[in-house]
Amino acid sequence: MCQLLGMNCNGSAAITFSFTGFAARGGRTADHADGWGIAYYQGSGCRVFHDDQPASDSKLAAFLSDYPIKSKIVLAHVRKATQGLPGLSNCHPFIREWLGQSWVFVHNGDLKNFQPEASFSVTCNHRFLPIGTTDSEKAFCWLMQELSAKFADRAAPPHWDELAPALAEITEIVARYGNFNFLLSNGEALYAHCSSTLHALERAHPFPTAKLVDCDVSMDLGALNAEGDRMVILATEPLTDEASWRKFETGEFSVYVGGACVFQHVNNKTRAFAMPTPECTAQSLALERAAELMVADR
Amino acid sequence: MCQLLGMNCNGSAAITFSFTGFAARGGRTADHADGWGIAYYQGSGCRVFHDDQPASDSKLAAFLSDYPIKSKIVLAHVRKATQGLPGLSNCHPFIREWLGQSWVFVHNGDLKNFQPEASFSVTCNHRFLPIGTTDSEKAFCWLMQELSAKFADRAAPPHWDELAPALAEITEIVARYGNFNFLLSNGEALYAHCSSTLHALERAHPFPTAKLVDCDVSMDLGALNAEGDRMVILATEPLTDEASWRKFETGEFSVYVGGACVFQHVNNKTRAFAMPTPECTAQSLALERAAELMVADR
Repeated sequence: MCQLLGMNCNGSAAITFSFTGFAARGGRTADHADGWGIAYYQGSGCRVFHDDQPASDSKLAAFLSDYPIKSKIVLAHVRKATQGLPGLSNCHPFIREWLGQSWVFVHNGDLKNFQPEASFSVTCNHRFLPIGTTDSEKAFCWLMQELSAKFADRAAPPHWDELAPALAEITEIVARYGNFNFLLSNGEALYAHCSSTLHALERAHPFPTAKLVDCDVSMDLGALNAEGDRMVILATEPLTDEASWRKFETGEFSVYVGGACVFQHVNNKTRAFAMPTPECTAQSLALERAAELMVADR
Repeated sequence: MCQLLGMNCNGSAAITFSFTGFAARGGRTADHADGWGIAYYQGSGCRVFHDDQPASDSKLAAFLSDYPIKSKIVLAHVRKATQGLPGLSNCHPFIREWLGQSWVFVHNGDLKNFQPEASFSVTCNHRFLPIGTTDSEKAFCWLMQELSAKFADRAAPPHWDELAPALAEITEIVARYGNFNFLLSNGEALYAHCSSTLHALERAHPFPTAKLVDCDVSMDLGALNAEGDRMVILATEPLTDEASWRKFETGEFSVYVGGACVFQHVNNKTRAFAMPTPECTAQSLALERAAELMVADR
């Protein structure tokens, strides 16, 4: 599978500490070595970095671990390919523009036979198409198509209070096809869903000294944050030794704005599907490679 | 104004040499200090780096000058704001997905009162909206809307032989509004248009030793390239001391694939508009800042 990392704060903060531990999972402390990526929102802008190299070996990841880009919302991903061969176009985050905002998405899980019907008119059928070959990007494109159809009459972007229930509804449909753990943002809110595994850590004053799980690195977070600061860190598996990491429920859809949870809905019918075995995944990727070679030979 | 840099090759090549000279124009050898960006195509994927700092001072630009990302198509930009305040969302390249491809765009020039009519149905009127406030991104969005309207019946991306004449036609309309020097790509071809200033350099075996104009750096390009390699470098102003830089004609629209020019059309009616004076630009940006402050105060 893959791993996710997200951060939402009420003030701009650097994610270098968390990212240092997270990047190690891209090949050193875990085997999510099929590429990585990270997106930082800054005002209405969004900068996304991708690399198809293992994060634990990547010079770009090393650069970013030491380069404090301050942001209120960050999403990151380390990949272990299940569907879609390793390669740049299959690295998350995926990004699309809708109504003048950048929408960014990272996913871990596996969606089998994901072929839902598009509910909108034929005219817009080719909006938001995948560039790569992952189930993740396909799901993201379908989610954006459904979202844009639900708000087809809008010229300006809706706010999170309207988007949250719409996204919860769309998410429930996708989650029927497999594990659909994801993070999603448009720069206003951070949307998170758990099918199988996701954890949240809320931090506020007084900030602790925290130690990373994946590296022998500790940080006095009180020295970096002011009294009014608040943030939430979301990660597939806890990144630090702090006791207050909370495990999401299966089917939980939560929304964060300004470092606080503003919306939560749990769908008790959501399944936490079993992940494919390494043997199944290897076989499936081998079939993809063979198919690509056949196309290339023509 | 801004400056543009592009590269198209028949094999993957690193642009570190050209980018070293180009980045210097972002604040050291020229005053294009309002941010920069660069996009590299790798297979169907595209990685875009942006920074709102001057390229000549940017740690990220310094990292990329020394980090050889190999690509067949690269587009880069250093910004001097004319319309749209300095800020991340106003840094080029701009990127949009259409029919499962990443379209990337960089522009230099100034488009006054750019308000063309959209030629397609109301249903798709909100496709490809700007995220920032530049004339450049607005023009790119309009170009993509017109292109997607012309090929509205397609489920798969057209090739350059169909896209080139369509883009030449769309370009002529935009170029009536001001200087519209640009580079555009979808990873298959590199499209280039000149209203006022753009230069091209074609390189093939035997490759020369070249010296950058902006830095005391020379490189024996023969040591880096094989006999069958060919490439074209496009730049607002020549980057090296090589004699074979060719100045585009006003109204020239050229398309490059595999390091060679495959399509060329010159519209003799295109005007090379006078650029706004620094005083006019400063006044216009001051008005934008004041307007932003008024909105923030409400």
